[in-house]
Amino acid sequence: MDYFSLALKKHEEWRGKISLTPLCPLVNKDDLSTAYTPGVAAPCLEIKDDPEKAYAYTRKWNMVAVITDGSAVLGLGNIGPLAGLPVMEGKSVLFKSFGNVDAFPICVNTQNVEEFIATVKNISLVFGGINLEDISAPRCFEIEERLIEELDIPVFHDDQHGTAVVTLAALYNATQIVGKEIEDLKIVINGVGAAGTAIARLLYANGARDFTLLNTKGIISKEHMTLDPKRAELLDFAVRDKGSGGLAEAVRGADLFIGVSAPNILTADMVKTMNKDPMIFACANPTPEIDPELAKSAGAKVVCTGRSDYPNQVNNVLAFPGIFRGALDARAKKITGEMKLAAAQAIANMVSPDELKPDYVIPPALDREVTRAVAEAVYCAAKGNVI
Amino acid sequence: MDYFSLALKKHEEWRGKISLTPLCPLVNKDDLSTAYTPGVAAPCLEIKDDPEKAYAYTRKWNMVAVITDGSAVLGLGNIGPLAGLPVMEGKSVLFKSFGNVDAFPICVNTQNVEEFIATVKNISLVFGGINLEDISAPRCFEIEERLIEELDIPVFHDDQHGTAVVTLAALYNATQIVGKEIEDLKIVINGVGAAGTAIARLLYANGARDFTLLNTKGIISKEHMTLDPKRAELLDFAVRDKGSGGLAEAVRGADLFIGVSAPNILTADMVKTMNKDPMIFACANPTPEIDPELAKSAGAKVVCTGRSDYPNQVNNVLAFPGIFRGALDARAKKITGEMKLAAAQAIANMVSPDELKPDYVIPPALDREVTRAVAEAVYCAAKGNVI
Repeated sequence: MDYFSLALKKHEEWRGKISLTPLCPLVNKDDLSTAYTPGVAAPCLEIKDDPEKAYAYTRKWNMVAVITDGSAVLGLGNIGPLAGLPVMEGKSVLFKSFGNVDAFPICVNTQNVEEFIATVKNISLVFGGINLEDISAPRCFEIEERLIEELDIPVFHDDQHGTAVVTLAALYNATQIVGKEIEDLKIVINGVGAAGTAIARLLYANGARDFTLLNTKGIISKEHMTLDPKRAELLDFAVRDKGSGGLAEAVRGADLFIGVSAPNILTADMVKTMNKDPMIFACANPTPEIDPELAKSAGAKVVCTGRSDYPNQVNNVLAFPGIFRGALDARAKKITGEMKLAAAQAIANMVSPDELKPDYVIPPALDREVTRAVAEAVYCAAKGNVI
Repeated sequence: MDYFSLALKKHEEWRGKISLTPLCPLVNKDDLSTAYTPGVAAPCLEIKDDPEKAYAYTRKWNMVAVITDGSAVLGLGNIGPLAGLPVMEGKSVLFKSFGNVDAFPICVNTQNVEEFIATVKNISLVFGGINLEDISAPRCFEIEERLIEELDIPVFHDDQHGTAVVTLAALYNATQIVGKEIEDLKIVINGVGAAGTAIARLLYANGARDFTLLNTKGIISKEHMTLDPKRAELLDFAVRDKGSGGLAEAVRGADLFIGVSAPNILTADMVKTMNKDPMIFACANPTPEIDPELAKSAGAKVVCTGRSDYPNQVNNVLAFPGIFRGALDARAKKITGEMKLAAAQAIANMVSPDELKPDYVIPPALDREVTRAVAEAVYCAAKGNVI
């Protein structure tokens, strides 16, 4: 049975992937009087006088909302908020299972940016953090920016930053193998949606300077500007002054190809034109931009994909549960650049120097030790103690 | 230790009364591919084509939002939405513990009626029902009406209808003891907030016709109209043409006093002026309108209160978990009058004829058998088969 048939069968069996569990007993009258009326008035009044006490008396300290508007669900596109619910429930399960974060799925029934922001703000009180999920670009950029600015709890669009953090982690280790420095790399990023944009920005924060960006209309430059104004602003540092053409032109002489785009668009011949020991991050799902074996036979030194059945899987689950665990434990108000870099470094460090090899630059997705290490690193970064 | 100190200590220990629990395994790669990508795309696409399938593939079928704006929390008044969270979490625990309903607390950060309605509508997709809680009158009436009309899932303001259902259940049994019919009763309702208004309306639906309503300004009549327009409309059937005065005037000759008002305002002397075998429902919390012993010594035949340490506790937990359980199982789109009457009758029936006595007209609050009976009755009523 393929994954799709099996998933359908299993989802029908589960009838939902997440449920609520009481943390207090309700056996006798005293329990009722303590957990509910009249006793519950006491923590209510404490919180009324000092809202911070919600972190002591309620689940806010550990509760994250997994919020979508259904506009860019998986690779399925704009399937609407309700159809995105199985993904949000799945994400909630990952949060709990990996990070012991209580996460609740919210599918907002509007794709109007202002209404979406207003709704999220209006329900934010019970949450200690907000994970935005599967929201289309460029809307996701404004939504995240505004919510970060207007709320005092961490807001994190995982499709952007989770992907960027794991990509950077893989790159830390891959550059060690090929003996190059990030700041010297000629980098091609094919696809500047949520993930591609965030990857470019995080690499830039790490010293990378030589970017060539492409979208479906080819190389993006100031003379061939095919970005909307928001993305043009966010990616200004990475947009070349001149140039046009396609992927073949872009990858010639490049050290690193990062694809968050479409299946089978990078050919072996293109890889052969890249610089010595090229690194290929072919992260399109489920079919990568190039088959890993093909890329290797064309000279690629390190190949990463988004798939679990090839080596070096770039999987967000390596990042987001630990990032939120660390941020919640630190009571951080934002997830800063430092926290993201700390997370990437922690993931990279989970591959020890003697294990490091071209087919092992990223730890396996299901390794809960990674979550623990990321949480610790993010906690320390949030507290200002970079480890 | 009193309940308040104990509750504070316990809430600090619990750090939240409800958490999320995964319902699917996440041990190996196959689990990840089934519960999450790529397999999860299958149920997403099914729901995209047929939104009804969300009931088969997600937790929507069993998920209820417990939603407040914090404007009328317990008897504490407008303490704001965040301060209401311990109550909402407690309610979520009751839902799960009694009705096996997954309930999630939402505290909406606005007290503007339109914004509140818009927010609830925008997040309603993931829920199979909505329990409104601790919203002040008369705002609660419009909010509930609008949401019932505009959503296709049950919306139920428990402070109104839960209280009304349990009150009616108690009255079914109390009238048997005093040998009177509901339609013949002279009824005084002191306090026409959310609960008082809903009680009057539910009694009217049961044939009651002779009402005298009071608020803090005394008897309400067309010549002494002290209700806002919304309440005046909702209670039109119960507002007398003439009359003014206070509680003493109102209760003279009455068969039934229902108080959802303030402590110790009904005196023994007033009770003595009531009709033979008067019934006193003194439901102010935590201190009733009259001490039950005092009421009895003044001639009251049946006395109910809101307290667990006296006989005959009118407690909503007898109603709402079973009402939602039945409504969810029946996939009802609304909670109708028939379903409320069925619930009241089911609660009343849990006191068997040979157990029935003045001090036992309502089953105990913690009896889970009541929830089961209510769920069954509500389910049948929703399906059109009144039992």
